[in-house]
Amino acid sequence: MYFVDLNCDLGESFGNYKCGMDEEVIPFISSANIACGFHASDPLVMMKTVALAKENQVSVGAHPGYPDLVGFGRRNLSASPAEVKAMVQYQVGALQAIAKAQGMSVRHVKPHGAMYNMAGKDAKLAEAICEGIYEVDPGLILLGLSGSEMLKAAEKTGLRSAKEVFADRAYEEDGSLVARSRPGAMITNEEEAIERVVRMIKEGKVTAITGKDIEVQADSICVHGDGEKALAFVEKIRKTLVQEGIEIVPLEKIVGQRQAHSF
Amino acid sequence: MYFVDLNCDLGESFGNYKCGMDEEVIPFISSANIACGFHASDPLVMMKTVALAKENQVSVGAHPGYPDLVGFGRRNLSASPAEVKAMVQYQVGALQAIAKAQGMSVRHVKPHGAMYNMAGKDAKLAEAICEGIYEVDPGLILLGLSGSEMLKAAEKTGLRSAKEVFADRAYEEDGSLVARSRPGAMITNEEEAIERVVRMIKEGKVTAITGKDIEVQADSICVHGDGEKALAFVEKIRKTLVQEGIEIVPLEKIVGQRQAHSF
Amino acid sequence: MYFVDLNCDLGESFGNYKCGMDEEVIPFISSANIACGFHASDPLVMMKTVALAKENQVSVGAHPGYPDLVGFGRRNLSASPAEVKAMVQYQVGALQAIAKAQGMSVRHVKPHGAMYNMAGKDAKLAEAICEGIYEVDPGLILLGLSGSEMLKAAEKTGLRSAKEVFADRAYEEDGSLVARSRPGAMITNEEEAIERVVRMIKEGKVTAITGKDIEVQADSICVHGDGEKALAFVEKIRKTLVQEGIEIVPLEKIVGQRQAHSF
Amino acid sequence: MYFVDLNCDLGESFGNYKCGMDEEVIPFISSANIACGFHASDPLVMMKTVALAKENQVSVGAHPGYPDLVGFGRRNLSASPAEVKAMVQYQVGALQAIAKAQGMSVRHVKPHGAMYNMAGKDAKLAEAICEGIYEVDPGLILLGLSGSEMLKAAEKTGLRSAKEVFADRAYEEDGSLVARSRPGAMITNEEEAIERVVRMIKEGKVTAITGKDIEVQADSICVHGDGEKALAFVEKIRKTLVQEGIEIVPLEKIVGQRQAHSF
Repeated sequence: MYFVDLNCDLGESFGNYKCGMDEEVIPFISSANIACGFHASDPLVMMKTVALAKENQVSVGAHPGYPDLVGFGRRNLSASPAEVKAMVQYQVGALQAIAKAQGMSVRHVKPHGAMYNMAGKDAKLAEAICEGIYEVDPGLILLGLSGSEMLKAAEKTGLRSAKEVFADRAYEEDGSLVARSRPGAMITNEEEAIERVVRMIKEGKVTAITGKDIEVQADSICVHGDGEKALAFVEKIRKTLVQEGIEIVPLEKIVGQRQAHSF
Repeated sequence: MYFVDLNCDLGESFGNYKCGMDEEVIPFISSANIACGFHASDPLVMMKTVALAKENQVSVGAHPGYPDLVGFGRRNLSASPAEVKAMVQYQVGALQAIAKAQGMSVRHVKPHGAMYNMAGKDAKLAEAICEGIYEVDPGLILLGLSGSEMLKAAEKTGLRSAKEVFADRAYEEDGSLVARSRPGAMITNEEEAIERVVRMIKEGKVTAITGKDIEVQADSICVHGDGEKALAFVEKIRKTLVQEGIEIVPLEKIVGQRQAHSF
Repeated sequence: MYFVDLNCDLGESFGNYKCGMDEEVIPFISSANIACGFHASDPLVMMKTVALAKENQVSVGAHPGYPDLVGFGRRNLSASPAEVKAMVQYQVGALQAIAKAQGMSVRHVKPHGAMYNMAGKDAKLAEAICEGIYEVDPGLILLGLSGSEMLKAAEKTGLRSAKEVFADRAYEEDGSLVARSRPGAMITNEEEAIERVVRMIKEGKVTAITGKDIEVQADSICVHGDGEKALAFVEKIRKTLVQEGIEIVPLEKIVGQRQAHSF
Repeated sequence: MYFVDLNCDLGESFGNYKCGMDEEVIPFISSANIACGFHASDPLVMMKTVALAKENQVSVGAHPGYPDLVGFGRRNLSASPAEVKAMVQYQVGALQAIAKAQGMSVRHVKPHGAMYNMAGKDAKLAEAICEGIYEVDPGLILLGLSGSEMLKAAEKTGLRSAKEVFADRAYEEDGSLVARSRPGAMITNEEEAIERVVRMIKEGKVTAITGKDIEVQADSICVHGDGEKALAFVEKIRKTLVQEGIEIVPLEKIVGQRQAHSF
């Protein structure tokens, strides 16, 4: 039996500003990465997004980012590890309270944008984040990029972790993503993208941009709900996975499953 | 035996900006109302303030405010009850996580500035706040002004509450504070202020501005640590209370004590 | 010959968040009220909006608001007249510089949302705003609601002003708008709305909600570009005005025209 | 005859938060770099700081920074050149309006903190800033670090510029500052610091950390007013300069003087 999680960034609206197609994409996913008010969202949007996740029985995760609303958390910021640790605890806690108020609980944490990218390459930053999460709740799951410093830090900290893969991105031989600026970085053919995902789940392999097959662990697939096209692709990928006998389950089950295998 | 709590707003620094004399005042108090990043403070300051409270064995409370840093949360804002409920849950949760990371827990909530004042007179706002707190943790204690809508809402919601009194303020016959703009609103004589407090605790009475004695329940005394003079007054008030055989204890003990009496 | 200005709030996007149909609505209007970064917009959006206005030969105005991005400047805030004066000067200046960099200049100021409403009823606030504008540039035109404290303050200050009317709103006998909460507040029939506007311009009269005709001075019509329906209405209103022989011109011409009549 | 400007960052308070000793330091300086609300300050503080500069006949400059209040604009932010250009125009314009309202005008621009440092090494960023300033007012003077990309960009853009030196910092042979992290980076002996400054002004030379004399152009000396010690040093440096026959004048005079020499 094969399992995979489908995760998507949700709750990125802010005040009067609507962003994303949350209601439309949520029926297709199993885990929601909910923005926590620093790079996007506000307390009321968080409340509504948790309600939407509850209604759709989707697992709730925190999606903390840098305090850069105008830059949507996508701009690198030279915050110290101590500052980042504090801002992650703050954001995770804010979502925990809002979730608890609705009988839900936060199950995972996936840093957003520039924080995800910077911590993926900076061990000290990654450790500050993982320690921060572990101190708040040692049962939380870190969702990160395969091969990143984030996942190494999670292991070092004792934090459970899950690896996410991207259907629409090419991979280097070392398992990292091909930079968007390079030709061939994006997998534009949808059929090919989905075939690659199915193979990652069933065989644990993907063909790198060099043509060589590499090993990859696909605990979760990152999907997007920010447009009609993205939405159609999520629907398609979900349908194919089900047809291929792959069960779509929340991260908790994936990580538990893997741990059961391990021991 | 008499008991009272001494509460003080702490952790109001922000980034590079220092505010208040937290280290100096904390040895004298029993409960800290910690700012949560909306009207003052930031995640790193919150982290340091919780550490300071832990070191001084002072009980930790959340001090949520309006999202108005430049106005220090003192300007009225026509936010809807739903917005205020969400922002309270957000701020309480942020502090809960930061506290939990250090083995501490949030014990009470005291809204700040304009939120405190507006909710004191607006039943719908007060109920939104109390419901918001209760949903996050039904064990939290609301710290509010005697006779305010906040305390009525706490009772209605089932939230535990404690009443705070002010040493330096005059009272109307109905137990409300005399508006600062009116003559006689401030008790400027320190001896008189302290005598009034001792009487409030021991006799449950205070002389209103009209000259008539009124009943008052003094669970907690609000003190300030924002200057040398304020600091000297806190030290003096604490010393006198101890001499008068009044034990200074955290809110939890006051509320528990009272409930033991009630039932 | 009849003249009128068509004004519309533009440039309300923010960072990653798109808001409004600026490109679509701008060909139909003569004056743009450009958000200045407090209730909406950011420096880059302001730059692009000025470029759009330049390209379409539309007159540029500042649209300052309260520092309340999450509330879109629609929530009342008890800022002092001095604070509001400073924030208006700040926002007007920011837009002036961005306009000047592109060879444009700011011609009018129209406060936004809660600032518009609060200053419309509060003489001190209105005077602080008008003085603030006058001190920055005595040639600026205040665009405000007929009969409001804002227009009285402009006169008192020596600031030029223009009166705006609303096609889709009913009026009280005193010339104020019927509160949105009351039945009949909105003119939902488009034909009727346009007929009313034409009459306001040609006859200087409108039928109040009581049925009585009142005098009204229509220097500018406030239109919206925040949806397909609003856009279609702007197109329709413009077409009708042209057919009726009413020339659509920027505020500068209206105010100059009127002054020429006066003297 | 020798001339030099003394510049100091002022107006860095924010809302309820006081920062710096503006009133005390301003009598000793000739140019004020006034914070513009992004890394510090708010509209009301800007208004008061301009009034203070006017009262003390000190020249007013804009001190724009990154939108990072909690980090005081000291954290690197990967904003694009277009974003930085827009945010500089925005901040310069905001101060221009507030200055104009008081009959003052902005004479120079000195980017703050991380923006100063990043643009000092990044030609594209530096050009975006200089173009942004030039477009707003070609008469403005850029105040920057000798040898930095900022000064090269000013020359390329046609923007007038002035070079600032630091009394308390050691220099590399190429005229750049020795990084603070390296030993010997700070000149801690006050007498030595002042002697170095006098020599920079009179001889146009300073001894680099390597022991070699290098050429340096000292148009302005950057001083600080953020504490009693800093204040005493400013007083001392001013007194010595006057005794040495060096006239302390605003940047405008320095740049004009130099241009008169050149032609």
